[in-house]
Amino acid sequence: MKSRLHKFQDGYTWTGVEKEPYRKPSEKAAGCYCGVHRQTFIGLKGEATKFHFRYFEIPPGGSSSLEKHMHEHAVVCARGKGRVLAEDMIYDMEHMDVLYIAPDVPHQLINPYGEPFGFFCIVDAERDRPRELSCEELKRLEASEATKGKFIGYIEGD
Amino acid sequence: MKSRLHKFQDGYTWTGVEKEPYRKPSEKAAGCYCGVHRQTFIGLKGEATKFHFRYFEIPPGGSSSLEKHMHEHAVVCARGKGRVLAEDMIYDMEHMDVLYIAPDVPHQLINPYGEPFGFFCIVDAERDRPRELSCEELKRLEASEATKGKFIGYIEGD
Repeated sequence: MKSRLHKFQDGYTWTGVEKEPYRKPSEKAAGCYCGVHRQTFIGLKGEATKFHFRYFEIPPGGSSSLEKHMHEHAVVCARGKGRVLAEDMIYDMEHMDVLYIAPDVPHQLINPYGEPFGFFCIVDAERDRPRELSCEELKRLEASEATKGKFIGYIEGD
Repeated sequence: MKSRLHKFQDGYTWTGVEKEPYRKPSEKAAGCYCGVHRQTFIGLKGEATKFHFRYFEIPPGGSSSLEKHMHEHAVVCARGKGRVLAEDMIYDMEHMDVLYIAPDVPHQLINPYGEPFGFFCIVDAERDRPRELSCEELKRLEASEATKGKFIGYIEGD
C-alpha cells in the first residue's frame, strides 16, 4: 500500500478513482436514487483504515434512498447544494457545509435544484446494512410540519 | 447524540466548531507548525464513529511536523494549495485533490505559498502517536533528488 494522490478533474472526477452507479434502481424506489454516482477514494484498495471515504453525486431531481442504520455519516457539500432530511429536521446544505447524521435516524439526501449536488461522505468501514423505514415512521414524516412534502418517500400499503 | 449541521462561514470557519491551535510550538521544531489551526467536526462530542474528521489550516510559510505513525491519513485540499512530502515523494495539492498517506511513512504538509493552505483530514479514532524520524531517515530525505530542500526538517546533532 503506497501513498497516492487523486487529482481533481473537470466534472468532479478524480484520477485513479472509478465513477460507479450507486445501487440498482428498484421498483419500490422508482426514480429515487437512479442516477446517483459514487467514487470511492479510500476503502476498496486494501487500506487498513477503520473508515471509508467516498464522493457521491445526485443529479437534479434525484435523491438517495430514505433509510436508517446504526452507523453514522459525515457529509461535506462539495458541489452545488442540496437538502437533507435527518430525523425530524430538514437541513439546507451549501458549499462546504458539514453535516453529522446520528445513529439510527431516518435520513435522505435530496437534490431539488437544477445543478448536480455532490458531497463527500465518510462512514465506518464496518457498518450495518441500511433498513427501510416503517410505515409509522413514514407517516410521522408526512405529518410533520418540518418535513412533509420535503422528502421522496414511499408508503407501503397504507 | 443529535444530527447537526455546521455551516461554512467566511474565513474557513464553521458554526459550532472551535478553532484551536494545533500543538504547542516546541524548541526542536521552531517555526514549523506554529500557526497551524485545527477544527474538529466529528470526534470530540461523543460520536460512536471509528474515525475523526477535522479541518487543518497552515499559514504561509508553515508546515505540519515531519513525522510518521501507523495510522493512515485521508487529506482533501479545501483552501489554497500546498505541498506534501510522503515517503519518498513530493505531491502538489490543489483544490479538491485527495491524498492517501500510507502507514508508517515519513510525511509533512507544507505551505510554501502566500495564501493559507487548508485541508480536511480523516484519521482513525483509535490511533498511535506520531514518532519523530530517525537521523538516517532525515538524511535519506535530504539526499534524495525528489525531496531534498522540499521539506522542513530537523537533523539532531551532526
